Amino acid sequence: MYITNVDKTPFNKTKSGNKIWWLLGKEIGVPNYEMRYFEIPPGNKTSPGSHPWEHEVFVIKGKGMVKGSNEEHTLTVGDAVYIAPNEYHQFINNGEKPFGFICVIPKGYER
Amino acid sequence: MYITNVDKTPFNKTKSGNKIWWLLGKEIGVPNYEMRYFEIPPGNKTSPGSHPWEHEVFVIKGKGMVKGSNEEHTLTVGDAVYIAPNEYHQFINNGEKPFGFICVIPKGYER
Repeated sequence: MYITNVDKTPFNKTKSGNKIWWLLGKEIGVPNYEMRYFEIPPGNKTSPGSHPWEHEVFVIKGKGMVKGSNEEHTLTVGDAVYIAPNEYHQFINNGEKPFGFICVIPKGYER
Repeated sequence: MYITNVDKTPFNKTKSGNKIWWLLGKEIGVPNYEMRYFEIPPGNKTSPGSHPWEHEVFVIKGKGMVKGSNEEHTLTVGDAVYIAPNEYHQFINNGEKPFGFICVIPKGYER
């Protein structure tokens, strides 16, 4: 059993200027998927694009948006989002407070 | 892309009297892992035991505890918990409000 907290875990800055906390990652021996917490400051975005692995997201703080290639949705606390492998996506904070979400990916990607 | 919200998703009652919302499950085509939201009412517990798959948990509501075979930890909002495959565990709500957490498992188990 391994336990941590967002406040105890160091974060990294992404190229886009967002914050990422690797909460449950390959370092602790997870066999299949890694759990991160992502926070986008007001007015900021994630890099748009696609990749061969999926995202499973759960919004825990603030409000924002997700854009697909032909769609756009408002997101708020309690929303769960599935982005399929190779699906274009971008998360946007168009609000005035930090927009934060849990994001689970298959193990070994993105680092 | 698929989006839902805890409030829009029907929940099931577990044998132990807890509530489970299958937010991102095999029905929507997730390839590797499923995301659920779990809520334990005050004074209730999950069934103790172990199974061959892991849990990755993130606490979003209330306070509670997790017991392992030789350990016991208080849990609060912002905590992330990894339970390894075959590790004994039990989640307990010893508080006075609902205790809620996201729980991710490999696809195809528990249903």
